[in-house]
Amino acid sequence: MFYPEPVSKLIDGFMKLPGIGPKTAGRLAFFVLNMKEDDVLDLAKALVNAKRQLHYCSVCNNITDLDPCHICRDKRRDGSIICVVQEPRDVVAMEKTREFEGYYHVLHGAISPMDGIGPEDIRIPDLLKRLGDEQVKEVILATNPNIEGEATAMYISRLIKPFGIRVTRIAHGLPVGGDLEYADEVTLTKALEGRRDL
Amino acid sequence: MFYPEPVSKLIDGFMKLPGIGPKTAGRLAFFVLNMKEDDVLDLAKALVNAKRQLHYCSVCNNITDLDPCHICRDKRRDGSIICVVQEPRDVVAMEKTREFEGYYHVLHGAISPMDGIGPEDIRIPDLLKRLGDEQVKEVILATNPNIEGEATAMYISRLIKPFGIRVTRIAHGLPVGGDLEYADEVTLTKALEGRRDL
Repeated sequence: MFYPEPVSKLIDGFMKLPGIGPKTAGRLAFFVLNMKEDDVLDLAKALVNAKRQLHYCSVCNNITDLDPCHICRDKRRDGSIICVVQEPRDVVAMEKTREFEGYYHVLHGAISPMDGIGPEDIRIPDLLKRLGDEQVKEVILATNPNIEGEATAMYISRLIKPFGIRVTRIAHGLPVGGDLEYADEVTLTKALEGRRDL
Repeated sequence: MFYPEPVSKLIDGFMKLPGIGPKTAGRLAFFVLNMKEDDVLDLAKALVNAKRQLHYCSVCNNITDLDPCHICRDKRRDGSIICVVQEPRDVVAMEKTREFEGYYHVLHGAISPMDGIGPEDIRIPDLLKRLGDEQVKEVILATNPNIEGEATAMYISRLIKPFGIRVTRIAHGLPVGGDLEYADEVTLTKALEGRRDL
């Protein structure tokens, strides 16, 4: 018993978070002891509120404190385009571009037979239902550019094409600010394949 | 407004912790959303309790939920030795060795004229008072092996020596498992100076 109990409980709590081991947890705990009491109370409240007040949007499955979420409520957006992403974080990443004006659909995962995750385990059925109800003309598949994301994109694309809806995939290529020399072969091949007329 | 408010508040809260920037805070916040509600409540409670239940021991200034702390209460320890350290974390580090049987004194800092921290700003007066009251025969100075820690050790040593109390400094040298080749010159010089007969 090296630490007083309130400290060791706090360390245990921090260690449940990802990427935080015993050393970092100890450092965070001692930092908390020196924080202003109000700041600590705010953090504690924020934890509880985030857990209690948030749920999934009944339309797009994004996390939200309203239902439908503030994006699905926004009538100025373009109802003819749906962008399909894996995680709520991906919606934030897309919104930060300020380039996309349509609506979203969050899958909460990707098809991954290795992990036993099939099409029914992510929100693909909800997506198909939306396509039936709404006046969607294009579905942009913005799942991650890895094996699971590609497999999910391929699967959804085959399901949707019979509806006569345009299905697109976000481009693969060199990241802006990147360096040709350090690009891996697969990315470079994709960048060549995806070349565009100037 | 990319995140629902409860999420952005949680991210702001995490960003107040050391070494946690916007990216990590976002990752932690989304992890919390997927945690079990009980675990989140436990973490929130641990934060508040750590802040509210802990204070400084009136004897050694270590953080504690009791007063005196569980070390100062322990009558089996050797009352003739006091080990002086900078931070409560250092007490934990010393205790983990299971080699030290005496009591501690936590300074909560080191003398640092650059930062405007003088001898009166850390718990040196408390230490002198303890030396007057208790039957101390040796003071081990275990402040950090850097400029501030050395200065603090030198300062305390000059204050205490007139009391006729033995004053010692923990050894400088090569860390166990280290490599001579990669040791810096100062450490190697100290290791030579501190050589012992076998």
